[in-house]
Amino acid sequence: MKLETKKELFTNPLYLESGRILEPYELVYETYGEMNEDKSNVILVTHALSGSHHAAGRYDGDRKPGWWDGLIGDGKAIDTSRFFVICVNVIGSCYGSTGPMSQMYPSQERYRLKFPVITVKDMVKAQRILLSRLGVDQLHAIIGGSMGGMQALHFAIEFPSISKHTIAMAATHATRPWAIAFNKVVQEAIIKDPKFKNGNYDPEDFKDSGFTGLAVGRMAGHISYLSPESMDRKFGRAYVETDGLFELFGKFQVERYLEYNGYGFSKWFDPLSYLYITKAINIFDISRGYDSLDEALKKIKTDLHLISFKRDLLFMPEEMKEIKTVMDSQGQRDLVSYYEIDSDYGHDAFLVELDKFSDYVANVLNQ
Amino acid sequence: MKLETKKELFTNPLYLESGRILEPYELVYETYGEMNEDKSNVILVTHALSGSHHAAGRYDGDRKPGWWDGLIGDGKAIDTSRFFVICVNVIGSCYGSTGPMSQMYPSQERYRLKFPVITVKDMVKAQRILLSRLGVDQLHAIIGGSMGGMQALHFAIEFPSISKHTIAMAATHATRPWAIAFNKVVQEAIIKDPKFKNGNYDPEDFKDSGFTGLAVGRMAGHISYLSPESMDRKFGRAYVETDGLFELFGKFQVERYLEYNGYGFSKWFDPLSYLYITKAINIFDISRGYDSLDEALKKIKTDLHLISFKRDLLFMPEEMKEIKTVMDSQGQRDLVSYYEIDSDYGHDAFLVELDKFSDYVANVLNQ
Repeated sequence: MKLETKKELFTNPLYLESGRILEPYELVYETYGEMNEDKSNVILVTHALSGSHHAAGRYDGDRKPGWWDGLIGDGKAIDTSRFFVICVNVIGSCYGSTGPMSQMYPSQERYRLKFPVITVKDMVKAQRILLSRLGVDQLHAIIGGSMGGMQALHFAIEFPSISKHTIAMAATHATRPWAIAFNKVVQEAIIKDPKFKNGNYDPEDFKDSGFTGLAVGRMAGHISYLSPESMDRKFGRAYVETDGLFELFGKFQVERYLEYNGYGFSKWFDPLSYLYITKAINIFDISRGYDSLDEALKKIKTDLHLISFKRDLLFMPEEMKEIKTVMDSQGQRDLVSYYEIDSDYGHDAFLVELDKFSDYVANVLNQ
Repeated sequence: MKLETKKELFTNPLYLESGRILEPYELVYETYGEMNEDKSNVILVTHALSGSHHAAGRYDGDRKPGWWDGLIGDGKAIDTSRFFVICVNVIGSCYGSTGPMSQMYPSQERYRLKFPVITVKDMVKAQRILLSRLGVDQLHAIIGGSMGGMQALHFAIEFPSISKHTIAMAATHATRPWAIAFNKVVQEAIIKDPKFKNGNYDPEDFKDSGFTGLAVGRMAGHISYLSPESMDRKFGRAYVETDGLFELFGKFQVERYLEYNGYGFSKWFDPLSYLYITKAINIFDISRGYDSLDEALKKIKTDLHLISFKRDLLFMPEEMKEIKTVMDSQGQRDLVSYYEIDSDYGHDAFLVELDKFSDYVANVLNQ
């Protein structure tokens, strides 16, 4: 599989949903496989909150491959021997695309809290502009999970003819207060951590021991990505040995997992990006700008596949099913299918239980 | 209804499950109604994590009555015109019973992190000793929800003949990693807040603006007390007006709710008590000290009523049902009943949806 990482600079303003602009801005992206001559084999993969454009393959020295490496590659469900796959780091993120820690041109300073509020629709718009620059006006498919699924839905509504197939997984049509509440914990933990310094932190300070606010908040996030059943299997009530002060009865494995992942994450993910992206997720509502959800969904012309996981406790199956119900009721039955996967893993199933939907994805792409 | 608040000092040591002792210790409690001559009308009500002995009635100037006031009172399900009701603040708590901010006699200092780890079984043992002092060796009933339900279960196993009826609601037989994970968020948020000062904080510092660590952690707790459905009804995606920096698109009602309740709570609940009580909940397992859950449950002689709420996302119905299944399978079918209440409110249903179980409770008590 041919893997390339590229960056594009855009000097025209990006008009944001908030009314503000981003100018200039950069997008970093990866591609897998090769584009055919008539550019008819392009698939866009969209990433989630803490994901990046590194969806597949492995760089020299990397311990882990890209986040959907099990799905994307030669001979895999998203077959890079046939398709040319693009994954773009969203604006607002911290992997190279323009985000709150980017330079606020022409000033030499970083944006920090002066970065504009961005929405998932803005992320999608920026990717659409990148595709235009690459000369791609027709995609074979768009596929993504969680916030990636939100992007896929926005693409289907805002750019109805851009893609033949759209697969949105583990997402929702509008973020519910339940998911907003989880994001509130992490936002509050970040903003109130004295080391946040109202956004004026030195990111180097977090490289070694992490950033408590983000670590603690991320622990709450992890709860929403799993399920009681997957935690039972992963951890049970097993103890790990410890010698700390407040640990007379030992520490539970689940506690060590949360510490390890929470603090680990906070060493490399930017707190401001986390604030801006969770904000984008909170205000996500595909009907914003339309009279109703019905009106928004009426714009869809693509063949749309909604995939949910039974015990997804962040974005629940009924939220995706509602899209299907509305579309069915307004004569779009032929366009939309809904597939609920029998899984008790939780939200992260879209990253983990690939064997449960690989065939489905491959079938859609081969249509 | 006659309401009295009392305090008892115990100078004999309380032998704790950890092998440590508490000596001396105090228990504060409330009583409602009047004890009859043969002391046969006594009901013990056990409280939850952030609850107190103030279960019913109202003091002068109080905005709110006790936490189960809808259930306890003259003519109510727990009828104080017939029963004498006792509710004891658990050891480790911060409402007057001995806890981490109590004096570490004979020293003049507070225990703080030198307070021993306590278990739910220890809380129960202390209450048993208090009952003995009051000359009560037979209860008509024990009833509690959440950690109160855990106490009721321990009573049923450790003191099999003390109570005729036992009602345990919204609890579990052993805390699962899912619930431990929620507690981990709050523990980590407290311990890592610089104002915690390794337990050496001045509680006066939190009286005005609260304590961020506990507030943020409590927000995570609130998620586990509610459900997606109850949050939809309570908040939807409604905005409230704000003028903050990071709030271009407004603040959601659910965010304001979490802030209001999180910071409010942190002004009056002691962080160390929160650490110790969540620890007790994490290590709660009614089979500890026995070969198996089966062996522990075999000790039960009381008429046991298990009540769960369908969308309790903290302690799930299947956890209570397992107690019923085990008891049924080992010849205790006549002792145990299981009642799953149709509610999508979430864990807090045991505090809120009283109309859904008042009659059931009244019937049990009238048997």
